[in-house]
Amino acid sequence: MTPQHPPVPGVSARQVLARNIKRLRGEKGWSQEALAFEAGLHRTFIAHVERAGRNISIDNIERIARALGVEPAYLLTCHGASGAT
Amino acid sequence: MTPQHPPVPGVSARQVLARNIKRLRGEKGWSQEALAFEAGLHRTFIAHVERAGRNISIDNIERIARALGVEPAYLLTCHGASGAT
Repeated sequence: MTPQHPPVPGVSARQVLARNIKRLRGEKGWSQEALAFEAGLHRTFIAHVERAGRNISIDNIERIARALGVEPAYLLTCHGASGAT
Repeated sequence: MTPQHPPVPGVSARQVLARNIKRLRGEKGWSQEALAFEAGLHRTFIAHVERAGRNISIDNIERIARALGVEPAYLLTCHGASGAT
């Protein structure tokens, strides 16, 4: 389990979510389209979420988490050492 | 930090969120109205969320988390030993 880092001031939940989804998707070698397919969502929706440009709902956070094989809380947890993208 | 429990099969992210908000609000001795005021939301909205009846957005999850003094991820983490409400 990656060590959890204290929240980085000024980094929104949207940005934490965006970073985690992008990183996990990359680790799986999936395109945005592949993740969208697995989660039952549209590719452009995934693209917006990964830019923190969408006020995503809890049900869709859960769909994406299931598709990536993690818990929804994991996607909202700050895993990076720094706040940088 | 309360020990994190493995997710309970069949319990949705909405239900985990509802339980955590209700418990934390109770620990603070706050009414739904008081939490709604602190989070800048409406009491009926809090009531729906606490019944897992609202597909709440990430921005509002963050508002409620800040009001309760926890991280958004904490609200989506299963803290109860059993899945029972």
